[in-house]
Amino acid sequence: MAKSQAMTSNLGVDYVIVYRFATTEETCNADRGRPDKTTASNHFEELVHRLASVGLATEVRNGENHSLLLFIRVASEKHLHGEVYRSRVKDWIHGVRSAEPSRETQQSLIKDPMVESERLRIIYQLITNPQAEGGAGITPKKGEWENVESLFSLHDHVYNKEWIKKWATQWLLTPEDLDDIRDRLGEKIGFYFAFTQAYFTFLLFPAGFGIFAWLFLGHFSSIYGIVMSLWCVVFTEYWKHQEHDLALRWGVRGVSQIEAPRHEFQAKTTVRDPITGEDQATFPAVERLQRQLLQVPFTVAAVLLLGTMIATCFAIEVFISEIYSGPGKSLLVFLPTVLLTTGLPLLTGLLTQFATRLTDFENFETESAYEKALTRKIFVLNFITSYLPVLLTAFVYVPFGSIIVPYLDVFALITRPFANSEKELHTTAVPNQFAINPARLRKQVIYFTVTAQIVGFATEIVVPYAKRQGFLKYRQMQSARAQKSSGLAPSASVEDAPEEKEFLARVRSEAELDVYNVYDDLREMVVQYGYLALFSVIWPLVPLSFAINNWVELRADAVKICVEMQRPAPYRADTIGPWLEAISFLGWVGSITGAALVYLFSNDGIGPDGSPSDIKGWGLLLSIFFSEHLFLFARWAVAMAISRIDSPGRQKERRERYLTRQKLFEESLDQTHKLPPMSEKGGEITRSSLEEEARSSSLGTASPEEKFWNRQRNWRESAQIGTGLIERSVPTQKEMEAGGKKEL
Amino acid sequence: MAKSQAMTSNLGVDYVIVYRFATTEETCNADRGRPDKTTASNHFEELVHRLASVGLATEVRNGENHSLLLFIRVASEKHLHGEVYRSRVKDWIHGVRSAEPSRETQQSLIKDPMVESERLRIIYQLITNPQAEGGAGITPKKGEWENVESLFSLHDHVYNKEWIKKWATQWLLTPEDLDDIRDRLGEKIGFYFAFTQAYFTFLLFPAGFGIFAWLFLGHFSSIYGIVMSLWCVVFTEYWKHQEHDLALRWGVRGVSQIEAPRHEFQAKTTVRDPITGEDQATFPAVERLQRQLLQVPFTVAAVLLLGTMIATCFAIEVFISEIYSGPGKSLLVFLPTVLLTTGLPLLTGLLTQFATRLTDFENFETESAYEKALTRKIFVLNFITSYLPVLLTAFVYVPFGSIIVPYLDVFALITRPFANSEKELHTTAVPNQFAINPARLRKQVIYFTVTAQIVGFATEIVVPYAKRQGFLKYRQMQSARAQKSSGLAPSASVEDAPEEKEFLARVRSEAELDVYNVYDDLREMVVQYGYLALFSVIWPLVPLSFAINNWVELRADAVKICVEMQRPAPYRADTIGPWLEAISFLGWVGSITGAALVYLFSNDGIGPDGSPSDIKGWGLLLSIFFSEHLFLFARWAVAMAISRIDSPGRQKERRERYLTRQKLFEESLDQTHKLPPMSEKGGEITRSSLEEEARSSSLGTASPEEKFWNRQRNWRESAQIGTGLIERSVPTQKEMEAGGKKEL
Repeated sequence: MAKSQAMTSNLGVDYVIVYRFATTEETCNADRGRPDKTTASNHFEELVHRLASVGLATEVRNGENHSLLLFIRVASEKHLHGEVYRSRVKDWIHGVRSAEPSRETQQSLIKDPMVESERLRIIYQLITNPQAEGGAGITPKKGEWENVESLFSLHDHVYNKEWIKKWATQWLLTPEDLDDIRDRLGEKIGFYFAFTQAYFTFLLFPAGFGIFAWLFLGHFSSIYGIVMSLWCVVFTEYWKHQEHDLALRWGVRGVSQIEAPRHEFQAKTTVRDPITGEDQATFPAVERLQRQLLQVPFTVAAVLLLGTMIATCFAIEVFISEIYSGPGKSLLVFLPTVLLTTGLPLLTGLLTQFATRLTDFENFETESAYEKALTRKIFVLNFITSYLPVLLTAFVYVPFGSIIVPYLDVFALITRPFANSEKELHTTAVPNQFAINPARLRKQVIYFTVTAQIVGFATEIVVPYAKRQGFLKYRQMQSARAQKSSGLAPSASVEDAPEEKEFLARVRSEAELDVYNVYDDLREMVVQYGYLALFSVIWPLVPLSFAINNWVELRADAVKICVEMQRPAPYRADTIGPWLEAISFLGWVGSITGAALVYLFSNDGIGPDGSPSDIKGWGLLLSIFFSEHLFLFARWAVAMAISRIDSPGRQKERRERYLTRQKLFEESLDQTHKLPPMSEKGGEITRSSLEEEARSSSLGTASPEEKFWNRQRNWRESAQIGTGLIERSVPTQKEMEAGGKKEL
Repeated sequence: MAKSQAMTSNLGVDYVIVYRFATTEETCNADRGRPDKTTASNHFEELVHRLASVGLATEVRNGENHSLLLFIRVASEKHLHGEVYRSRVKDWIHGVRSAEPSRETQQSLIKDPMVESERLRIIYQLITNPQAEGGAGITPKKGEWENVESLFSLHDHVYNKEWIKKWATQWLLTPEDLDDIRDRLGEKIGFYFAFTQAYFTFLLFPAGFGIFAWLFLGHFSSIYGIVMSLWCVVFTEYWKHQEHDLALRWGVRGVSQIEAPRHEFQAKTTVRDPITGEDQATFPAVERLQRQLLQVPFTVAAVLLLGTMIATCFAIEVFISEIYSGPGKSLLVFLPTVLLTTGLPLLTGLLTQFATRLTDFENFETESAYEKALTRKIFVLNFITSYLPVLLTAFVYVPFGSIIVPYLDVFALITRPFANSEKELHTTAVPNQFAINPARLRKQVIYFTVTAQIVGFATEIVVPYAKRQGFLKYRQMQSARAQKSSGLAPSASVEDAPEEKEFLARVRSEAELDVYNVYDDLREMVVQYGYLALFSVIWPLVPLSFAINNWVELRADAVKICVEMQRPAPYRADTIGPWLEAISFLGWVGSITGAALVYLFSNDGIGPDGSPSDIKGWGLLLSIFFSEHLFLFARWAVAMAISRIDSPGRQKERRERYLTRQKLFEESLDQTHKLPPMSEKGGEITRSSLEEEARSSSLGTASPEEKFWNRQRNWRESAQIGTGLIERSVPTQKEMEAGGKKEL
């Protein structure tokens, strides 16, 4: 029962800070100046004080390995409500919320209740915002607060259990399920699940159509290619629309505009605006632009390095598997795989580090700008590592294989200097025996879209789980041994109060979990989408494989967040950000590769006219040209059509904006009503008014303007005179004739 | 002196309405039910009454040919100020103005004085807005008010004279000159002049570079082509930026969002929104989309019709000028020109009418949406008629001339059935004698970019002027004759008061002027830009010609507006609208045609390798592919770079938004300040508090949560206990060793 108590209640804890006052490495390597205990104590006191000063109550408990667990909760709900209200007003003023919050705090909270993610976000901001902005200024792992090892909220295990149970038994996710995630984990994670769900739903159509194409249309079907290209367009544009709508539904539209500044941003000049008095820490745009130009050499270098590596491994592989027939072939076959699996992650890691440094150097002002710039660079790396192998097979190996492969003998010459007579090699093994292996392309695509997905799933979910279980076992053993040997490292739990024991054990174990990064999951989805957009024409069952994979993935990600990760802090977002650009871009590239693949392989790898020699450069380029421009035109047309579609979210927003406008308008116009109503000039044409007119015109001192405007003193006079003019107008021909007839 | 008086003063007249109570045709064709005089009188009375009801004073005078001149001015300045203020508040609420207008009307007008175009726009809206929206509902030439022939304000001749004088002597226009136009004629016309000025300024660089290329780089220089393509990118993106900036500077950013609804819009359903109570006249988007699909057959038909016509004339021309050598050649040479100059305008007119009807049928809700849709269709027509002839020469005549031209003998067979022996014709005249005329392309481009510009200038400025002078002469003669013969049609000026005679004569002559349509001038500029983007690589002096032309054009347009047109009513706009899309599109197409032209003709019309037969399809397509994608990439990069550039307009807007936000924020937060400040839990650890703790924990009824949180009663206790935990932490290895050493 105690166990279930610990699992079901968080005892009102909002956040937990792990404060590490000494690290194990420092213990071993004492020369590096470990802060002594007094410093650590003072620092910790400062931490607790700061938290208290922003209205947070704290409790401290012992943690593992020289750390303290600091439990945080809001001291007064009323104070929290004030903070929530402030945040909402700020949103409204920045145009994020369309309805003005009620002027009375409590009423506003009743009308629009606070969800858990909002509560946790506000508290998170209270803890991390700079002191100048009313926060405690605690920045985990950064600068002054390096000792604050992590800051996380506790999992809601009751909800998590229900969540996983519900999803596992449910075929499709409803919008309410997504709302639920948003309410719990914030909009940023909500957008990931919404995107994956939309992607999954959209996949159902090509999955079905793919089976049809696989059965009836044959390989490299142009019909399938066109349908997939259109599908990409519709999906991308639909998601843009949907994203907008979700942002409105969740009340976060435009939130990226008011995002908190980056802590690492280094202003070059601080300008105090003479009018607003607002200190503006700025960094000249031109200088940043210059720094961004470094991306060009970076991209070139990345393409060259990764490209060379992949191409080399590819060449070795082709050589060994298709030309080489010397000794050790059975072992040498694994050489390229070994090279790739060791070298590629190393190189990618290196380049990613470099990209991060480059982005740091670009010195962005906001987190979102930073993230966007970094994502773009990472996307380039991902693009190369993910798609280059297939591109090489499709556009180098197959069309030019018979020309290039013989040159791979250079390897043969080096690796087998003592081989049989060269003549034999050349004449028999290479130009005659060598034939392009058309199955290679399909095999490769199947590998990337089925095998690699399953392997990825395993490394993402199963391996960490096993690792963690092993680690826990190891820890238990170690601590048992330590206690037995000398009592040196007693477990942190020794001093726990009995009724808290279970709860604290749970918190300690959650403290050791990883931090969830939703962008990694998003990247995975986008890379997957890329295979679909670029290569699914090679093997029409790709969408089916992905549909199955993503159904599982959605649920596995939920499990991952609940079990393997610390509960993520709820961030806000109004888009999946730079990945949207990536999707759009991949669809575009897909229209090119799709056309090229169909043209090159439409007759099972032997070109449109039955023999590979009949592949014409201009034919290929013309297919690409038409396909690409049709794609761009379709995109334009679909975007136009979709932009016309209305949605409940948009309607709600318009309604709210209307009401707010109306209210403001009325308030502002109150005083114009005080203006005297328009009084008509003069009144009836009375004797006195006529006399007045006569007098004024006889005065002669009246300006020409006055004279002009005083001839007719009100609208009735104008009408009278006009009528007179009409009546007196020259009789028309007909009247003339009629008159003439009468006279007769 | 009286004359100059009439020219210098408008006698305070804001607008003039020409009310025609009987038309000449009706006079002749009396069966069609001419409204009799009583109806006309009543109708006129209603008109005057309506105007009076919205606070406008009127004066009526006699007009030419059965018409009345109704002079309108605002009766009370205070009332007008109220209207201006209302309009400004509305702008602010819709986010057009960034600063909230002062809450006091007069103060707002002092802070931000009303310019003439604002005044005239407000009065124009008073006259034309529906009665439900507080206007008089007078819609010239439409529906009930068909008799209101025109509604215009009077030229300010003093200003006009200065304007033209200033511009004629000034080399470049300053931003203040543009502000001046905007203050007088409104933002829509202001944007036209701003665009043309920006275009002219940008042209100076390619004009210079073009001379350089013409002298040193030879024809069809790839360097020139690349430079021009980049120039197009930079110009388009710069203009987007500039346009945004101007819209902020002129306070109209976002004005297209709040545009008045179209009078002709026919709602299908009127839905009363249950929440706002706002009547929403709507037309289903899906139905409109279906109607818009008609554009596809329309475009196809237009391309086919115009294309066939142009291609036929082209073929006839080639045939006659280059193959035909029979009788009547000197006359027949003019046949295609005659066909084109008569048939093309006829066909274009027909298609334009059709496009207008199609757009009417699409039933748009706002004027701007309507205008946009119509412009798009007109642009397609313009694209075909303007560029197809050159495209035919470049991409059909030159590369395929030697293949196609012989088939033109079909004409020969028909037109000359009795010609010399066919054998002779075929063998001598066509395949052997016929040679492509490479000068044709250049001649054609020179024609379109120099000759046609001058001709266009003449038809636009000189011809109307001459026509008008002639018309005036004719009228004078006619009226003199009429008076002499029977006194039937006395001039309208007979009854004029002597001091008004000159003024009224001027008004009557202005009433007969045409209505200025700024979109015609914009279209002309965009079509011109198209020649530059698409074909300037053929003859590098194109930009020079255009630069000279546009310097004159800017001034000629000013003269045109002042002399040949009624003073245009000031409309607002925040962009050059759909023409921006057109420019962007033309630049893109230019990247394709440019590459193709350079590839095809780079060695003076004989292909890259010196002989026309060496032109490879894949080479051409590859050039296009690279050029286009480089263009798109450059556009993306330039757009990114330019979007980072700040500007005074943007700064001003940010500042104003900041101030407004701050004010609203403070007002809204006033009452959250009333919340009690955060009080720290408990105080010092006193005996009583400890006793209290003991008691509460001994009570046993406390929930686990309470127990957990009551262990440490304030931050000082937390800090104390944390410090304690740190102090008591297990001694580290080093301390152990130190301790060990001491013991030794």
